[in-house]
Amino acid sequence: MAELVGNLLVAQSGGPTAVINSSLAGVIQEAGRHDCIEEIYGGANGILGILNEELIDINDEKAKTIEGLKSTPAAALGTCRYKIDFKKKPEKAAKDMDRLFEVFQAHNIRYFFYAGGNDSQDTSHKIHEEAVKRGYEMRVMGVPKTIDNDLPFTDSCPGYGSVIKYAATTVMEVGIDVASMATDDGSCCIIEVMGRSAGWIAAGTVLAKRGNAANPPHIILLPEIKYNVDAILAKVKETVTTYGYCIMVVGEGIRDEQGHEIGADKTRLDSFGHPVLAGAAEKIKELVQDRLKTKTRTVLLGYAQRAAEHFASLTDSTNAYACGEAAVRAAVNGQSGYMVKIVRNTEGGTIKWGTDLQELGTVANVEHFVPREWATEDGFLPNEKFVEYARPLIEGEVKIPFEGGLPKYVTLEKSKVEKKLAPRS
Amino acid sequence: MAELVGNLLVAQSGGPTAVINSSLAGVIQEAGRHDCIEEIYGGANGILGILNEELIDINDEKAKTIEGLKSTPAAALGTCRYKIDFKKKPEKAAKDMDRLFEVFQAHNIRYFFYAGGNDSQDTSHKIHEEAVKRGYEMRVMGVPKTIDNDLPFTDSCPGYGSVIKYAATTVMEVGIDVASMATDDGSCCIIEVMGRSAGWIAAGTVLAKRGNAANPPHIILLPEIKYNVDAILAKVKETVTTYGYCIMVVGEGIRDEQGHEIGADKTRLDSFGHPVLAGAAEKIKELVQDRLKTKTRTVLLGYAQRAAEHFASLTDSTNAYACGEAAVRAAVNGQSGYMVKIVRNTEGGTIKWGTDLQELGTVANVEHFVPREWATEDGFLPNEKFVEYARPLIEGEVKIPFEGGLPKYVTLEKSKVEKKLAPRS
Repeated sequence: MAELVGNLLVAQSGGPTAVINSSLAGVIQEAGRHDCIEEIYGGANGILGILNEELIDINDEKAKTIEGLKSTPAAALGTCRYKIDFKKKPEKAAKDMDRLFEVFQAHNIRYFFYAGGNDSQDTSHKIHEEAVKRGYEMRVMGVPKTIDNDLPFTDSCPGYGSVIKYAATTVMEVGIDVASMATDDGSCCIIEVMGRSAGWIAAGTVLAKRGNAANPPHIILLPEIKYNVDAILAKVKETVTTYGYCIMVVGEGIRDEQGHEIGADKTRLDSFGHPVLAGAAEKIKELVQDRLKTKTRTVLLGYAQRAAEHFASLTDSTNAYACGEAAVRAAVNGQSGYMVKIVRNTEGGTIKWGTDLQELGTVANVEHFVPREWATEDGFLPNEKFVEYARPLIEGEVKIPFEGGLPKYVTLEKSKVEKKLAPRS
Repeated sequence: MAELVGNLLVAQSGGPTAVINSSLAGVIQEAGRHDCIEEIYGGANGILGILNEELIDINDEKAKTIEGLKSTPAAALGTCRYKIDFKKKPEKAAKDMDRLFEVFQAHNIRYFFYAGGNDSQDTSHKIHEEAVKRGYEMRVMGVPKTIDNDLPFTDSCPGYGSVIKYAATTVMEVGIDVASMATDDGSCCIIEVMGRSAGWIAAGTVLAKRGNAANPPHIILLPEIKYNVDAILAKVKETVTTYGYCIMVVGEGIRDEQGHEIGADKTRLDSFGHPVLAGAAEKIKELVQDRLKTKTRTVLLGYAQRAAEHFASLTDSTNAYACGEAAVRAAVNGQSGYMVKIVRNTEGGTIKWGTDLQELGTVANVEHFVPREWATEDGFLPNEKFVEYARPLIEGEVKIPFEGGLPKYVTLEKSKVEKKLAPRS
């Protein structure tokens, strides 16, 4: 393999996580160990910034800032949801691709790393194919990232372990709270978590049970399973009767028997005539209060769950870092067109985490869901198979520095790399 | 002062907090140091359990469990919202009072400690007065507790420092997240916090700004101030224009110019014809999306904020403990009919926290609100006076033990004290 000398460009895409910056630190710190990599650039706001030739000079950042990325949430370089869509907008996509390669060439980018979820892996794949087609020598690697945990082939997605550590802890804490005042108050609490059509996050809160059926959460609803609303209410009633209270976790995308999203209430329209998305938890709360006359409160973790660096999983953060590191190593070794994946090796009961490579073409646009056989027959709780899978992902705590009682997170200086091209038309 | 020999009864009341168990540990551990206190009992579920003669034998608990209370959220003894209401239900109240003193006498209770908010201090006050009237020698002390921070005379309420440490951190984290993807997504996020008609919790999230106007939260709405809805929307628009995104924090009880709760949407009725409480954040979200066309997401922390032991303030926890401890010391020294209050002594720029006593009669049913002069003229942010007050309350972190990646909280064994009375009629 011939050594490829040139500059590196790394960017972040999609919804941020607590550990996407850990992957970024992995890329940057590993890149610093290879002489063939000359300049290290960051793309501001993912592909969108690269199209606008907005590159950040990473070598202008302090070493301690890069180190601090390992304990800083959100996307330090900025992110976007911009998609190069050859199917729906082929002309625009072709134009975007031309522009990207103009930028790559202008800045002698020979290593390109893109951290993101399904769509971003698809983008990386297209860029890799395009580089091959154009005969432009560049090594392209996808770095996995998504709290939703729905990328295929990888054991788990960086970001997922942290979100379920935080969400399971929240469920534990809310559970103790509600139980302690269940005499005359708050006998049902519904916690809504993210994950779109994948139930991995909701399922992950089952860890709060710690093997005890009496412990909350008592009910977990997954978007993968269609639920009969009456059966949900019957289960709530049974739980309140048995334990005096009920803690339920719902994925935001849960569906009824007809396959309709429960959170989308079509009886209420906003000023444009669109159905108001009341939220799944709010909708079920109304049903429980109306039909069971049980006082119900909701918790909507929203963005707080994916940004909760203050309670991030060390295993997750370490794996995220390793993905960034492995991407650079593989690229320097001549590989291109792969996503790094996390591999779990269990030897004598102990897990040894590692990484491997997966062809981007096999990853792009494939969604990975919670297997049906990982939940109980009635669909109201993940089972032991799931617990065995998820438990190791929340091990360990990321240590964060404090200042005045609050976490001290880092911010990149973001020195701009001088532009060499005319503005994007 | 004659030494009073007898048993101690401690109970918890109202909504739990992250540190109400720390006060409980303070009472129990201090009580163990005084020979005049023979048995230590806990009332199960506050006054409600005492009325039912449900007492817990605290001396049957392990010392390490009591120590673990310092880092366990919610009310370990159980709590209630039961009120002895002489105004609205005088006959029932008189009957309840008779029953309470039957229980006190049957178990030779000579020391009674009740941790709670406004209503609970009122209950303690009535019990104290009743004891004096009946000539039943018993020392009654109120221990302050409420995340709402609305008890008068005390510098702050145990529970408050922890909730704002957690909420401010959440606002910081959500803020970094939203800022990092503000290119094309999530340009407004509204975080709703508790506090009923008091804005202390909402105001406390201003600490996330750390003195930088550009930092979130950009807007904080307090229930103490009446807001013009158009002015709120104009402020959101201005913020998004200036910073590219907007993080707003709202107290659950915020009101419009007419003094109506914004979260109570009277245009929507549930199946009983009652207005649906959509929540203040959801309501403003709809307005922002409809009128400004700005994508908006909400976070509803709900019970999670008051139970967030995993990120509790050490200052708060230490003060909570000191309140329990001081209550016992004062009672042993012959005092009765007081609430312990927290006192801040600033010497040479350093704060030395202490406690003092406040007559229960002056505390009961008085609510303490955020002073108008602690917010900016437009009412959209607390000012430096507030920051100076609140910042010291979040100093330090409570260390919690872990097991399998999750916090390890303690549970009381709750051995029941043998009943001596006929069941409550």
